[in-house]
Amino acid sequence: MGNLFITFEGIEGCGKSTQARLLVERLTFLNIPSILTMEPGGTEIGISIRHILLDARNRDLPPFAELLLYEADRAIHVEKLIKPALNAGKWVVCDRFSDATTAYQGYARGQDMQTVGLLNQMASRGILPGLTFLIDCPVEVGLARALKRNDHCGEQGQDRFEKEKRHFHVSVRQGYLSIARDNPERFIVVDGVLRVDELQEIIFSHIRPFLPKGTKTP
Amino acid sequence: MGNLFITFEGIEGCGKSTQARLLVERLTFLNIPSILTMEPGGTEIGISIRHILLDARNRDLPPFAELLLYEADRAIHVEKLIKPALNAGKWVVCDRFSDATTAYQGYARGQDMQTVGLLNQMASRGILPGLTFLIDCPVEVGLARALKRNDHCGEQGQDRFEKEKRHFHVSVRQGYLSIARDNPERFIVVDGVLRVDELQEIIFSHIRPFLPKGTKTP
Repeated sequence: MGNLFITFEGIEGCGKSTQARLLVERLTFLNIPSILTMEPGGTEIGISIRHILLDARNRDLPPFAELLLYEADRAIHVEKLIKPALNAGKWVVCDRFSDATTAYQGYARGQDMQTVGLLNQMASRGILPGLTFLIDCPVEVGLARALKRNDHCGEQGQDRFEKEKRHFHVSVRQGYLSIARDNPERFIVVDGVLRVDELQEIIFSHIRPFLPKGTKTP
Repeated sequence: MGNLFITFEGIEGCGKSTQARLLVERLTFLNIPSILTMEPGGTEIGISIRHILLDARNRDLPPFAELLLYEADRAIHVEKLIKPALNAGKWVVCDRFSDATTAYQGYARGQDMQTVGLLNQMASRGILPGLTFLIDCPVEVGLARALKRNDHCGEQGQDRFEKEKRHFHVSVRQGYLSIARDNPERFIVVDGVLRVDELQEIIFSHIRPFLPKGTKTP
């Protein structure tokens, strides 16, 4: 079987960045060429866009501008990193992708869904993940983890999205669950309350069928 | 008569920034409340977007991402600066606006015109200039001036657009002339080869009919 484009989605603090990293470590251990990337900020120009999007001082960024900045980041990311990596036969594991825009800017911010869908399609040049893991967890669990992480990292407080009110995150979670229901062929919803190693095993059990024949997995 | 939204358009080095500034100085002298602004970069967040767009190191920015970044800058600019100023009764003089996106990203970069039109409309929330001055001049004249300006300012060379080849600027110029032909009700095409003071007089002669009754102009 060929290479795969895998995305991880979920609310703040659901554990998707950790699971994306662990998956790439495991693929690398199995000698499967793979890259770990993320949105926003998967490219050099994307990092500048990420700064604008996450900077808590930009709290009054108009929602349509926010949508456009995410799509600009995606257009660069797909063109410069994701497409070339997939064409080179690499597996691409991405922390957030188009579904995040549908959940955050569409469902939670209320931007017109048709516009979101059109821009998603244009920015990603029609590339869809082969598998998307939605790490679902209650908003309270996710936010508590995100807060703890910020404390640990000694960062200057929360970013613009972490500062959103509880009902915003509830809308994002509900949005993600709707998208998963609408796209059962590529979505796998997993329980973000599980321990990291338990969750990793479940995720990897869904990856195993896609590994090249003869790959020896522990 | 009420306040007016006036935009200046044209290729690099045509003289639009100078004429926009001179117009606002003259309005201010006449005690007409007015602001001078520009795209990209008319707001604080917009300045960060402007840096990305003009940085010559980002020469391989995908055209669709470029389009999205211009529209993001515009969405913020309209929402945070232009609309509030117009609502407060001020005259707004803007160095480049939606027509620049149609000319540069549409005509010169070949982005889909329907998409450009749709995004222009959404980002500007339907706001159209009451008057648009297209300062038309041959590409050679504009580029020579832009080059000279960079030398004077001691800037680190040319920006990403100034580095474009001659045929790109020719397409921008032709694009602008087409847009002007299609929108005769608000476009005034003036000759950018004229002396600054001559051009200023011509431009102001088109402004005069819109001034509040009883305004004494020199």
